[in-house]
Amino acid sequence: MAAAAAEVSNRSVALKRYVTGFPSEDDMELVTAAVTLAVPPGSAAVLVKNLYLSCDPYMRRRMTKHLVPSYIPDFVLSEAIPTFGVSKVVESGHPDFKAGDLVWGMIKCEEYTLVTKPQLIYKINHPEFPLSYYTGVLGMPGITAYAGFFDVSKPKKGEYVFVSAASGAVGQLVGQLAKITGCYVVGSAGSDEKVNLLKTKFGFDDAFNYKKEQDVNATLKRCFPEGIDIYFENVGGAMLDAVLLNMRMHGRVTVCGLISQYNLEQHEGVHNLFCVLTKRIRMEGFTSREYFGTYHKIEEEMAGYLKEGKITCVEDVAEGIENVPKALVGLFYGRNVGKQLVAVARE
Amino acid sequence: MAAAAAEVSNRSVALKRYVTGFPSEDDMELVTAAVTLAVPPGSAAVLVKNLYLSCDPYMRRRMTKHLVPSYIPDFVLSEAIPTFGVSKVVESGHPDFKAGDLVWGMIKCEEYTLVTKPQLIYKINHPEFPLSYYTGVLGMPGITAYAGFFDVSKPKKGEYVFVSAASGAVGQLVGQLAKITGCYVVGSAGSDEKVNLLKTKFGFDDAFNYKKEQDVNATLKRCFPEGIDIYFENVGGAMLDAVLLNMRMHGRVTVCGLISQYNLEQHEGVHNLFCVLTKRIRMEGFTSREYFGTYHKIEEEMAGYLKEGKITCVEDVAEGIENVPKALVGLFYGRNVGKQLVAVARE
Repeated sequence: MAAAAAEVSNRSVALKRYVTGFPSEDDMELVTAAVTLAVPPGSAAVLVKNLYLSCDPYMRRRMTKHLVPSYIPDFVLSEAIPTFGVSKVVESGHPDFKAGDLVWGMIKCEEYTLVTKPQLIYKINHPEFPLSYYTGVLGMPGITAYAGFFDVSKPKKGEYVFVSAASGAVGQLVGQLAKITGCYVVGSAGSDEKVNLLKTKFGFDDAFNYKKEQDVNATLKRCFPEGIDIYFENVGGAMLDAVLLNMRMHGRVTVCGLISQYNLEQHEGVHNLFCVLTKRIRMEGFTSREYFGTYHKIEEEMAGYLKEGKITCVEDVAEGIENVPKALVGLFYGRNVGKQLVAVARE
Repeated sequence: MAAAAAEVSNRSVALKRYVTGFPSEDDMELVTAAVTLAVPPGSAAVLVKNLYLSCDPYMRRRMTKHLVPSYIPDFVLSEAIPTFGVSKVVESGHPDFKAGDLVWGMIKCEEYTLVTKPQLIYKINHPEFPLSYYTGVLGMPGITAYAGFFDVSKPKKGEYVFVSAASGAVGQLVGQLAKITGCYVVGSAGSDEKVNLLKTKFGFDDAFNYKKEQDVNATLKRCFPEGIDIYFENVGGAMLDAVLLNMRMHGRVTVCGLISQYNLEQHEGVHNLFCVLTKRIRMEGFTSREYFGTYHKIEEEMAGYLKEGKITCVEDVAEGIENVPKALVGLFYGRNVGKQLVAVARE
């Protein structure tokens, strides 16, 4: 008979109330409970110790109470918030995992997670990179950028690409994938620091701070005298309207995110959809979830680009689980510089 | 030496001034000039006598003075308005045409047109049908419906299809092509008479008068409890917003026209584009012009459906060139019941 498993403290972050408008740190709470460091007997679950937690804009949608179910379930109040993250296996009831394995996938904002759906976690094949990269380029944002750019946007060499929220987790990758493809790439971001990153770190051909532009339509005309072939859409609203006026014939608008709209009670109207007709634009939405089946191919390709120095990453790392609410809220004020994550433990 | 060609009177309709807002009959004028019934010596032009003139919603765009050139040139003031039509060749300088040939293609709102671009007219291969069908099912609207439905919407048997402006030239054809494909089809129109046509004449599974519905979102939910796979968009604005809420995963919005917006100074905002993201919708615009290269294939297919009785057509025929302004303006008030055209001559 096995020795009784240790019981330790497990801090977690839960949603206290559903959110309307911008979220605040006070909408979340830090909860401490006890966890037994063992998998229930006979279960195929996997108990993991969490190292890095990912903070992603799509999580805002789950903070709203939806009367009509959304494409992804609302968070459950008072329960640890589900998120992607990087973890180390403590004990496994599943044959694919063993104690000590490094994994990433769907866990929760807490120190230890009992993963009851092991099909939602993946073994880490490239521990030679910073493990935190599995919340970014080697994780969900990497899948999103890769699939959204290659599968949905269908780029051709020499095309003109515009990326909004370009220094964020997905935007920074899309810009670099576009350069790898031989495209001309311009990005927008919300601070001069971020714009500088785009130009000096990520190799964008040009970039601008949208908060400083009086007339984004004119700015886009200056950046793209020939027009835009691909718009990788992360923000929505007025930016989309300005972009539509600057799209070329047969342009593609790949809708990855609409962060400018997530906290609005009523979404802004988009007025220039006639351009979709007159320029034969294809506007297409997607989410990464349909591409997890091709994850290992994407992981290998991204790992290759990292090794060759063709892709570089900028992360914004908050320390300690108690900082999850601040990091998550910061996304919607553009406070993060690069991929936002929270380091919960270093090993 | 040939006898001197006859000179006859040639009435035409021209735009008097560029239009803002809804067009009025008074924006156009009837002009009478003389025309010599001959092709200039050495020219490859074709002189035609016009039988039927087509009135199409896209023509509204050409009535506006565009500071930034649109996808199609603005009309030239005081010159006969270009349009599609059906004609008989009077004299030809082009080897592909001879006197007496029946043709359709880009002519002008006048009694006789000297066609200087014979590549824009086509010989009529099926004179066994009413010649006016070459302004509809066998002409540009036929190309539009066929290409927009099959090539852009990419329907599958059993899918749920919604068509707005469904009794119009294109809508009536799309609905019938959808039934041929084995889809479930619902149409909207702006009068009970048109709704009745949709159900009794064109075989739509259901139809509604959007002007009588308080809440189009609820109406669509009632008509499509499973949601909409394909929306064939002819109107835009509030209808598009309601449809987006009712689209299914991987739905397609094929943007063929936006007639509700053409006469507005500022287009209405569309607020529900987040559905494009969450439901992975593909919204794609198109115009028929890219499909004229495949015209003869489409003509044969449509002729086959007509012969089999699988497609039926309803036309709204105005008599006399002097009624072009009224017929054209009527499109934007929904006065036409079916494909609007003007009979200029019967032979």
